Amino acid sequence: MPTANAYAAQSEASGLAPLTIERRELRGDDVAIEIDYCGVCHTDIHFAQNDWGMTMYPVVPGHEIIGRVTAVGEHVSAFQPGDTVGVGCMVDSCRHCEPCQQGLEQYCLEGPVVTYNGIDRHDGTVTYGGYSDSVVVNEHFVVRIPEQLDPAAAAPLLCAGITTYSPLRHYGVKPGHKVGVIGMGGLGHMGIKFARALGAEVTVFTRSPDKVSEAEAQGAHQVIISTDEEQMQAAAGQFDFMLDTVPVQHDLNPYIGLLRYDGTHILVGLLEPVEPPLQAGPLVMGRKVLAGSLIGGMPETQEVLDFCADNDIACDVEMLDIRKLNEAYERVKKGDVKYRFVIDMATLKGTAS
Amino acid sequence: MPTANAYAAQSEASGLAPLTIERRELRGDDVAIEIDYCGVCHTDIHFAQNDWGMTMYPVVPGHEIIGRVTAVGEHVSAFQPGDTVGVGCMVDSCRHCEPCQQGLEQYCLEGPVVTYNGIDRHDGTVTYGGYSDSVVVNEHFVVRIPEQLDPAAAAPLLCAGITTYSPLRHYGVKPGHKVGVIGMGGLGHMGIKFARALGAEVTVFTRSPDKVSEAEAQGAHQVIISTDEEQMQAAAGQFDFMLDTVPVQHDLNPYIGLLRYDGTHILVGLLEPVEPPLQAGPLVMGRKVLAGSLIGGMPETQEVLDFCADNDIACDVEMLDIRKLNEAYERVKKGDVKYRFVIDMATLKGTAS
Repeated sequence: MPTANAYAAQSEASGLAPLTIERRELRGDDVAIEIDYCGVCHTDIHFAQNDWGMTMYPVVPGHEIIGRVTAVGEHVSAFQPGDTVGVGCMVDSCRHCEPCQQGLEQYCLEGPVVTYNGIDRHDGTVTYGGYSDSVVVNEHFVVRIPEQLDPAAAAPLLCAGITTYSPLRHYGVKPGHKVGVIGMGGLGHMGIKFARALGAEVTVFTRSPDKVSEAEAQGAHQVIISTDEEQMQAAAGQFDFMLDTVPVQHDLNPYIGLLRYDGTHILVGLLEPVEPPLQAGPLVMGRKVLAGSLIGGMPETQEVLDFCADNDIACDVEMLDIRKLNEAYERVKKGDVKYRFVIDMATLKGTAS
Repeated sequence: MPTANAYAAQSEASGLAPLTIERRELRGDDVAIEIDYCGVCHTDIHFAQNDWGMTMYPVVPGHEIIGRVTAVGEHVSAFQPGDTVGVGCMVDSCRHCEPCQQGLEQYCLEGPVVTYNGIDRHDGTVTYGGYSDSVVVNEHFVVRIPEQLDPAAAAPLLCAGITTYSPLRHYGVKPGHKVGVIGMGGLGHMGIKFARALGAEVTVFTRSPDKVSEAEAQGAHQVIISTDEEQMQAAAGQFDFMLDTVPVQHDLNPYIGLLRYDGTHILVGLLEPVEPPLQAGPLVMGRKVLAGSLIGGMPETQEVLDFCADNDIACDVEMLDIRKLNEAYERVKKGDVKYRFVIDMATLKGTAS
C-alpha cells in the first residue's frame, strides 16, 4: 500500500511528531491528492490531546486540506490530475439517507465519516487527516478551489469558513439584518466577513477593548465591549442574529436579551452544557430561538469557496512550518494567532520518521 | 363611573372573594361586553398568589373571556350590540411598532397591556380581568366568536388555544410532520387537537401510564411513557417538532434527542431557567432549534377561533360556579381538571360584596 509522510500524536501528552502512514489504493470513485496546505483547527488540538476521550492513536489531525489532484479512480470524471482541490471535515457518509440526499452530509443519519479519527465505511480503517503530504478521498467529498483564491488562505474555509457561512445562509441573512458576532478567532473573523458580504450590519462582541480596531479592520460596523453593561443595555432588542463562535462555556442570557423578537442565537462553537442556565422566559416572551449549526454539506462547501472567490474574501492566516506545530498548538490555546495557522506542507519534506 | 361585580384576590393568601370594581366609560374605540364565561388559567393562580412578585392588589384575574357586546364607542364599526365576542390575554398595545404592525401585538416593543394586572396606556389605571360580569376593551383586542362554537368551550381558546396553535402555525406544521406534545393539561390537550387537525402524526409524552387512553381519546396517534428509557430510545431522531407545554422545570435533553435534524423544540409553558442544563452539542450536531412562543397576535387569535369552528374543535371544559373558585384553584394546582375550568358568570349574580 502507498505510504505518506505525516505528523501524528501518539498519546495524550506526546505532542505531534513525524510518522509514516499508509494511504489506500485508489477505489473507482477516489481522488488522490498531494497536499500543499492544511489549516490548524482547535479541534485538532482536542483530538491530539484526547480532550473528548474518543481519540484513536496514532491520530493525524487536519481537516482544512488544500492540494492538487495526482490521480483519479476509473469512475471519476469531475476531477483530473493537476486540479487544485480541497477536503474539509468529512470524507464519506451513507449517501442515501434524507440529509445526505439533501446535500447535508454532516447530518448523515449513519454519521458522516470524519476526515481523521473516523472509521472508513468500506475497510474499517481509521482515517488520517491532512497533516500529511497526501490523502485519498471519495470524489463526492472533494471540492474545487476557484483559481481566484490564494490556496493557502483558502484552507480554513473548509472548516472555519463553512461553519460560519452555513448558518448565515440557512437563516437567510441579508441586507437590513443586524448580526452580532461573538468571539473573534478563526471562526469569528470569518463570520464578520461573511455577514458583511451578505449585506448585514455587523457588530462584534469582545471582552477586550484592545480588539476594537482589529474588529473594525475585519469589517465590523460596530464593536461592543461585552463586559460593559451600559453598552450591552443600549443594544437590547436590536439583533436579528447572533453568531456565537465561542467554544467554551459562557452566559448566553445577555446575548439573548440583545435579540429582537423572532431573533436567533446560533451556536457554532459550543458543545458543552449551557451554563449558567439558559433563561426560558426571554425565549417565550420574544419568540426567540436558540439554534446550533455544524460545518456545512458538500454543495454548500463548494458554494462558500465560490462565494469567497466572487466576493474577494480570504481567511487571515499565518503560515506555519510543520516542525513548529507543537509551539503553534500552544499559541492557538492562548488565542495567539490571527486568525488561523496554515501548515505549508513543503516543510514536511525531509522530516520523515 | 360604571361598576361591575367581580371576584378578586386582596393579598397573597386571601383567596378570591367578591369585589365591586369600576369599569371605564366607553372611549370612541371601545366595546362594552357582558361576560358570560371566563376560563381559569394557571397564570391566574400565579397572579392571585403573587408567585411572580408583580401582583398589584386587588387583582381580578381572567383572560379567557367570552360575552356579548352591550354597547360600542362612536368610532366602532366592526361590532354591534348582541355580538358574541371574546377577549384574551391582551387589551391594548402601542399599535405602531413593527410587531404591532405585523399583528404580533404580544411582542409589542412597548409591552402589550395585559388583560389584568396591566396598566392602561391612557389613564394609568390597573386593568381588571374576566372574573367579572362586564368589561370594556378596545375593539382591536376583541375577537368574534363564530356561531358554530359553544361559547363556554371557546373561552380557553383565547389563551390555552392560541398559545398552542400559534407556534404550530408559525413553524408550518403540516401533513407528514411528526409532532410530540409534552404535558396534557389545558395547553397540551389543545396542542394534540391542533397538531392532529393540521395533519401531523401526534405523539403524547406522559409520565403516567394511566393517561395513555386519555391521550388517545384526545387524538394522539401514539403515546410514549417518558420515564421508559426503551420507549424513549426507540423514538430517537424521529420528531420534527416538540410542543412543550410543561410550566415547571424539567429536563429538555431527552426530548432534544428525539428531534430529527433541523427539528424544533417549542417552549410555551416554561418561564424558568432551563435546568438541568441544556446540552449544546446535540443542537449543533443536528442543527436543532430550541424556541419559545407566547400566546398569539390578534389576527391569529381570530384565526384560531375560525379554525376551531371549521374543524369542529373545542376545549374540554368543566363548568364552574364562581363561588367554588378557591376550591377550583386547589384542583388546578393538583392537575385535577379535564382540562380547563370555565366560570359560568351567571353564578356571579347576587354574590356582590
